[in-house]
Amino acid sequence: MNITQRYQLSLALLTDMYQLTMAQGYWKKGMEEQEAVFHLYFRKNPFQGGYTIAAGLADAIDLLQHLKFTEQDLSYLRSIKSSTGQQLFEDGFLDHLRQLQFSCDVDAIEEGTVVFPNEPLLRIKGPILQCQLLETPLLTILNFQTLIATKAARIVDAAQGDRVIEFGMRRAQGPDGALSAARAAFIGGVGATSNMLAGQLFNIPVKGTHAHSWVMSFDEEQEAFAAYADVFPDDSVFLVDTYNTLDGIKKAIEVARQLREKGSELKGIRLDSGDLAYLSIEGRRMLDEADFPDVSILASNDLDENLIQSLKLQGARIDTWGIGTKLVTAYDQPALGGVYKLAALRQKNGDWDYKLKLSEQLIKVSTPGILQVRRFYRNDSLVGDMIYSEPLQVNASATMVHPNDPTQRKSFAKDCNHQDLLVPVFRDGKQVYTSPELSAIQERTKQQLSLLHETYRRFLNPHIYKVGLEEQLHEKKFKLILQLRESQTT
Amino acid sequence: MNITQRYQLSLALLTDMYQLTMAQGYWKKGMEEQEAVFHLYFRKNPFQGGYTIAAGLADAIDLLQHLKFTEQDLSYLRSIKSSTGQQLFEDGFLDHLRQLQFSCDVDAIEEGTVVFPNEPLLRIKGPILQCQLLETPLLTILNFQTLIATKAARIVDAAQGDRVIEFGMRRAQGPDGALSAARAAFIGGVGATSNMLAGQLFNIPVKGTHAHSWVMSFDEEQEAFAAYADVFPDDSVFLVDTYNTLDGIKKAIEVARQLREKGSELKGIRLDSGDLAYLSIEGRRMLDEADFPDVSILASNDLDENLIQSLKLQGARIDTWGIGTKLVTAYDQPALGGVYKLAALRQKNGDWDYKLKLSEQLIKVSTPGILQVRRFYRNDSLVGDMIYSEPLQVNASATMVHPNDPTQRKSFAKDCNHQDLLVPVFRDGKQVYTSPELSAIQERTKQQLSLLHETYRRFLNPHIYKVGLEEQLHEKKFKLILQLRESQTT
Repeated sequence: MNITQRYQLSLALLTDMYQLTMAQGYWKKGMEEQEAVFHLYFRKNPFQGGYTIAAGLADAIDLLQHLKFTEQDLSYLRSIKSSTGQQLFEDGFLDHLRQLQFSCDVDAIEEGTVVFPNEPLLRIKGPILQCQLLETPLLTILNFQTLIATKAARIVDAAQGDRVIEFGMRRAQGPDGALSAARAAFIGGVGATSNMLAGQLFNIPVKGTHAHSWVMSFDEEQEAFAAYADVFPDDSVFLVDTYNTLDGIKKAIEVARQLREKGSELKGIRLDSGDLAYLSIEGRRMLDEADFPDVSILASNDLDENLIQSLKLQGARIDTWGIGTKLVTAYDQPALGGVYKLAALRQKNGDWDYKLKLSEQLIKVSTPGILQVRRFYRNDSLVGDMIYSEPLQVNASATMVHPNDPTQRKSFAKDCNHQDLLVPVFRDGKQVYTSPELSAIQERTKQQLSLLHETYRRFLNPHIYKVGLEEQLHEKKFKLILQLRESQTT
Repeated sequence: MNITQRYQLSLALLTDMYQLTMAQGYWKKGMEEQEAVFHLYFRKNPFQGGYTIAAGLADAIDLLQHLKFTEQDLSYLRSIKSSTGQQLFEDGFLDHLRQLQFSCDVDAIEEGTVVFPNEPLLRIKGPILQCQLLETPLLTILNFQTLIATKAARIVDAAQGDRVIEFGMRRAQGPDGALSAARAAFIGGVGATSNMLAGQLFNIPVKGTHAHSWVMSFDEEQEAFAAYADVFPDDSVFLVDTYNTLDGIKKAIEVARQLREKGSELKGIRLDSGDLAYLSIEGRRMLDEADFPDVSILASNDLDENLIQSLKLQGARIDTWGIGTKLVTAYDQPALGGVYKLAALRQKNGDWDYKLKLSEQLIKVSTPGILQVRRFYRNDSLVGDMIYSEPLQVNASATMVHPNDPTQRKSFAKDCNHQDLLVPVFRDGKQVYTSPELSAIQERTKQQLSLLHETYRRFLNPHIYKVGLEEQLHEKKFKLILQLRESQTT
């Protein structure tokens, strides 16, 4: 279930006010149909990492498919006053919005794809008024889901094949923050969620047993475990730290014995506080000595990829990782700085005019053109990505230039395979791409990461994957920067 | 417009799976109607600050009012299998959910109130099954909105009366992250949002003019400014950093002159990159020298309360602060660690059994009872808050004990005024409280903060506001901890 189905509202106003004032400006100046190209991209991998996992496209598609201003939206816009008390948005413009039909071409990188800085995740080509209005919602959706899918992939990587469960709803940034995070975390490789609504909407496996309150609602901890086991003989994981963890484990073992006598097996115990390394090692020893080698140990408590890695180094005996806050809010970097920049504008004579935004930092100068990303492979490993402009195509020697250091260049040998990452999603406003099932997207993430050498997946100072600008595109951009700087007279 | 109106879905499943398994457990054990008391509270002010602003109650009320399992929800629950392939949730239990009618008493602290660690923001009393199910959504809603309202209040404080505008939608954690953040930021004191949907739904003033793409869609920057001024003669704020900021300001001044000739005045310029201190001082000088002292300077670019404070110290001449990412994601602490703990359970004989969860850290031991917060005032200043249990009432000398250091005590003099902060919101499931208009809540925040001495509002090492446990409650809690520790045999 996608975003327009989740919300009861028209989402046409899910945008910044300046998109609408600019839209009225384009309309008023007769520019509303002028063909533009915008790219959505980010400038740095999140979490000081070496890669990013694209996510959110299904919701973005859904939003584009349902772009429609309702009478209620228009009447709200009509109610907005200028500083002199006039109607800010003219009736003629509101009529234009009423009749607006999405008619753009959209190309995007598929969800679950490994992506890198400066690569357009999405390219939109069409009337500038439409492209402009869509900037904010496209960023909101793709920024967040891409961020969380990446965080999840890192956590799953640290867990080295152990089960990972997402249960962060209570600390998520609002209900939809929880839902979108559950979806994106699954794309990143997490196996299950505690979020029932996400389970229902996205068909993600759900998991969960009991909390401290269950234990506290009985007079004795062991009585609480026994009661739970009675209700769920084959699905019990006991939370053992309500009063004292090691004592709790003893009681869990007692109840596991009773359960075994009735023909069932305790599934696991959960540690939610204290020294997880010590407690899991002690707990494993106690469980094994009591002949419960198959009772698994689940740990939670503000975990993230770094803590998982550290616990593994310490020999912690944890089988399943429950990850909440740090995953669903991407705690150490709660926003991906994705941007959306105008890159080309069709002139009256039909030619494309390449556009860029300057900045004192080269890394912040946008790349002009109608961009595509060509990924080169050798023996099933990624070797580099080249950003090129479709009208310019790729030069014969397949040479690319470092985006921030023009002295560094790289050419791809003829025997490299390659693939263009942006695929057609809309043509003239008609959807031409169907999102895969979520489980297939998760599979894609896994397969994509397997193509990436482990040095790029390292958490600390990862190897930097090579992404460059195709040589002719580089030259064009370089010239354009010089031209623009020259025209500034200060 | 509240949360159930925003979502097209039943939100009964907006909860963690373990709430439902425990619910089935309570039902199966005949405990489903046992009366329980849970409190929702946090343990630390966010952002290492000295206070917190309560927010989110209106959405929480709305959610409670609409608690209802639909047939679709039940059929999803019916589809969930146990590890042995059986139906995990029994038909009898699903019938119980089908007939579930919210019947709890809820007391809560009003939105816009200054609150402190350990104080229940919300208390719910009723059938344990209902209280349990509601843990997750109540936490999701109150945690996030309280976090953002607090962040906003800090930013508004740093701005010292300057206008603050929220425009973080593109970096928010999903669409509802953006909406909830806009609402909470307004509660915290922000004057306007760029989020049109938030403007429409919550009646928040909206603001915005143009982006870089507007400038780039013209051949010359000055042409772009002139065109915008033509469309919005009385509402233009020019973004001047597309190519070179000082050059952009010169061009803005040119267009401001043309505008003045036509009888209108430029409203402002916006700086979005570079050294904001230097550029705003230079910009102010240029505007003043050109006889535009009333053209205001708006600044944006990853600002937060600390940067605002630093820019003010440097003499930056900024009149309006546009705050995005750092506000809507609460970047430096993207989650409030609110918890929801069982505190009392009605026994068969009608007596309340006080409940607490142990922890090796005293700060993490929950407080038992049926709690209320009494706030003491002297001369319109807050002097301290006492958490007491309603059945125990407050001792004659109004003495309270430090929650984590029983050697520290404080008594309130007879001439202190006081007020109990938790107000009735639901009685027997019927709503008895109506949320004020959002603007009234914003006013309340402002008034509340004026009662708080500025040393509590300091960003670095703020003075710690005194919150204690009423003496009898402290004794009861202390005894209960000793009892529980004794019963642990390890």
